[in-house]
Amino acid sequence: MNRTAKGSRVTIADVARRAGVSAGAVSFALNDRPGVAEPTRRRILDAAAELNWTPNARAKSLSQSKAFALGLVIARRPELLGADPFFPSFIAGVETVLAEAGQSLVLNMVATPAIEQETYRRLSADGRVDGVFVTDLRAGDERIALLAELALPAVTLGRPDVTSPHPAVCLDDAHGVAAAVRALIERGHRHIGHVGGPLTFLHSRSRRRAWAEELATAGLPANLGAVADFTAAGGAQATVQLLRRRPRPTALVYGNDVMAIAGIAVAQQHQLRVPADLSIVGFDDITLAEHLHPPLSSVRTDPFGWGQAATRVLLELIAGESPPDLELPAAAAVLRESIGDCPGQPTRKRSPRVKEKT
Amino acid sequence: MNRTAKGSRVTIADVARRAGVSAGAVSFALNDRPGVAEPTRRRILDAAAELNWTPNARAKSLSQSKAFALGLVIARRPELLGADPFFPSFIAGVETVLAEAGQSLVLNMVATPAIEQETYRRLSADGRVDGVFVTDLRAGDERIALLAELALPAVTLGRPDVTSPHPAVCLDDAHGVAAAVRALIERGHRHIGHVGGPLTFLHSRSRRRAWAEELATAGLPANLGAVADFTAAGGAQATVQLLRRRPRPTALVYGNDVMAIAGIAVAQQHQLRVPADLSIVGFDDITLAEHLHPPLSSVRTDPFGWGQAATRVLLELIAGESPPDLELPAAAAVLRESIGDCPGQPTRKRSPRVKEKT
Repeated sequence: MNRTAKGSRVTIADVARRAGVSAGAVSFALNDRPGVAEPTRRRILDAAAELNWTPNARAKSLSQSKAFALGLVIARRPELLGADPFFPSFIAGVETVLAEAGQSLVLNMVATPAIEQETYRRLSADGRVDGVFVTDLRAGDERIALLAELALPAVTLGRPDVTSPHPAVCLDDAHGVAAAVRALIERGHRHIGHVGGPLTFLHSRSRRRAWAEELATAGLPANLGAVADFTAAGGAQATVQLLRRRPRPTALVYGNDVMAIAGIAVAQQHQLRVPADLSIVGFDDITLAEHLHPPLSSVRTDPFGWGQAATRVLLELIAGESPPDLELPAAAAVLRESIGDCPGQPTRKRSPRVKEKT
Repeated sequence: MNRTAKGSRVTIADVARRAGVSAGAVSFALNDRPGVAEPTRRRILDAAAELNWTPNARAKSLSQSKAFALGLVIARRPELLGADPFFPSFIAGVETVLAEAGQSLVLNMVATPAIEQETYRRLSADGRVDGVFVTDLRAGDERIALLAELALPAVTLGRPDVTSPHPAVCLDDAHGVAAAVRALIERGHRHIGHVGGPLTFLHSRSRRRAWAEELATAGLPANLGAVADFTAAGGAQATVQLLRRRPRPTALVYGNDVMAIAGIAVAQQHQLRVPADLSIVGFDDITLAEHLHPPLSSVRTDPFGWGQAATRVLLELIAGESPPDLELPAAAAVLRESIGDCPGQPTRKRSPRVKEKT
C-alpha cells in the first residue's frame, strides 16, 4: 500500500511533490508548527492521506526537538573566512539537509576561545539550537568536554585527539596528500616542500604528517616545510622563503588552493615556469583550479557531502539514536598540468636564480 | 562621571574589558538572559557599577526583541555559494556586529522562489528572527511586499526597483565599473567586452549598464556583452565566445574575479598575453587578485563593511527607530598589471589567432 506506482516506498518528498510544497512544509504541517497557511496544510494532509503516508519514527521523534535549529560556531578571524572555500561549501551541504527537515542553521563567528566557550554555553542555555557541529578540531580540543558538560548534542568533523563521547564524521585528507607526494616522487622530484596551515588544527597536522611520512618512505628528508595562514598573502610569503632555500625545492605542496595559486604567481615572478621549473599542488580542488593556466593539481575533498553527512548524523543523535562514527570516502589527488617531471633529469639544465620580490 | 580616564564616554566595551568578558556577555547579564554563570554575572554588574555605566535606551529597547537573532535567506544554488566570495565576507561583517550585541544569525538556503517565500513566512511565524536581510535584489522583487505583509523588519542591500517600506543600505558598484571602463578607453581600447552575471539580479543590471553607458559616452558600441553565472566554468565559456567575435575584443570586464581569473587562463590557452594582447578587469577584488601574475585589476566593494552597516540599521529598526537609507562609499576601480595599452596602437602588430579550445 505505502508504495508509489513504481513500487518504491513513499517518502516525504512524494507527499511534498503531490502537494506542490517543500518537504520542510510537509514536516511543519504534520507537526502542527506555525507558518503553514491553512489551505496549504489541508492540501498537504490530503496528499499524505492519498499516498497513505505517515511520518516514520525518526521524523516523529525529530518533532520533539525544541529549537528546530542546529548551531555552527566558527572560531576564525572574520577576514579569513572569505578566503577559505571550505565553510561556504560545508554550510551549503548542511542547508540542503536542513531545508528538507524544515530546520535552520544558527551561525556564530567568534574571535577568541573565551567568547567561543561563552557562545556554546548560551546556545545551550537559550535552547536556541538542538545540537552543534564542531569543525576545525584543535589539539587537546577543550570543546569536547565542554559540550559533554552542557549535554548539548554534537558531531565532530574528524576524530578528536582527546576521548570524545560525540559521534565523528571523518574524511581522511592525508590519503590525497600522500598520493600527490608519491606522484611527485615518481616524476623524479627529491626536494619537495610543504606550505601548510597553522599546526594548532588537527587537519593541518594530518596533511603535514602525510607529506613527511611519504618522503620518509622514499628515504627523503622532510626539511622544506613552512607554516602559513591559508591566505594568499601568507602562501606567497612562505613560497618566497622556500624558493630561497638551497637546494631549491622543485615541487611545492600547499595546504589549500588559494595559497597554491599565489605560489604559482610568485614562481612566475621569479622567472620559474610551472611545471617545467617548479611543480605545484594545492588542496581543496576549488572549482577555479581546473580553469587556471596551467590547470592546478589539487586534493579533492567533499565539504558539501561532509556537511550533508554531518547534518544527518546530528539529526539522528538529536532524535535519540546512537549513530556510529562515519568514514566518508578519502580525499583523492587530482593531477593536472601544474605538475611535471623534475627539472634537470635526465638532461641537467641550469635552473633560473631565485630573487626576493622587491 | 560616566567617562573613562581618558574622558571618553564609557561604552559596553569598557565594561566588558573590565569584567574580562565579551560585550555580548554584558548585554546578556544586564538583560537577565540565561547562559551567563552567576560569578560572571556578578563580575559584570560590579564592573558596570564601578564605571557608573547603564545601558542606553537603544540597548534597553533591543532587549525587548524576542528572538535575539537576525535572518538571512539565500536563494542561490548551493554549489554556487562556494564560488562566490561575497556571502562569506558579508556574513563575517554581520557576525562582528551581532557578536557585540550577543545575537545570532539564522541562515537558510533555498532552492526555489516558492520555498523562499515559505521560509520567510516560517521565520516570521516561528518568531525565530527579529528581522531579515534582503540580498541579491531582483527585478520586481516580490519579497519587498511579502515582508511588509508579514510585518517582519527588513533591510535591503541596495534600492529595490519597486516601492519599498524597508530601509536600504546601498553601495554603488556601477561607479567602479565605469571607472575601469574609462581607464581602458584612455589606454586606447575600442573593443571592450563585458561578461556579467544573470540579469535577473539588479546588481548585474547595474554593472552591465555602467559598462554600456561608459562606452556610449565615448561613442563606442556596447556590442560585446555576454551573460554567465559567476562560476569559473561559465566565465571561461563566455570568454571563448567573445574571443571568437570579429573584431576581437582587446579588453574584457567581468562581473566577478572568479570569472576574470578563468578568463585569463582562456586567453593564455589561446596564446594571448595578458595584458599585451588582452586586458582583463574583474569585480570584488578578492584577496587573491593582487597575488596573481599578472596582478588582477578589479573593482573593490566592501562586503564586510556592508554586512556591518546593514546589521546596525536592522538592529535600529527592530529597536523601534526609523533609520534612513544609508549610502556607503562607492566601489572603486583598483588598476593593476592585468590591463595595458590597446595592442597595435600606435605600432600595429598582428594579433594571434583565436581558436576554440578542444
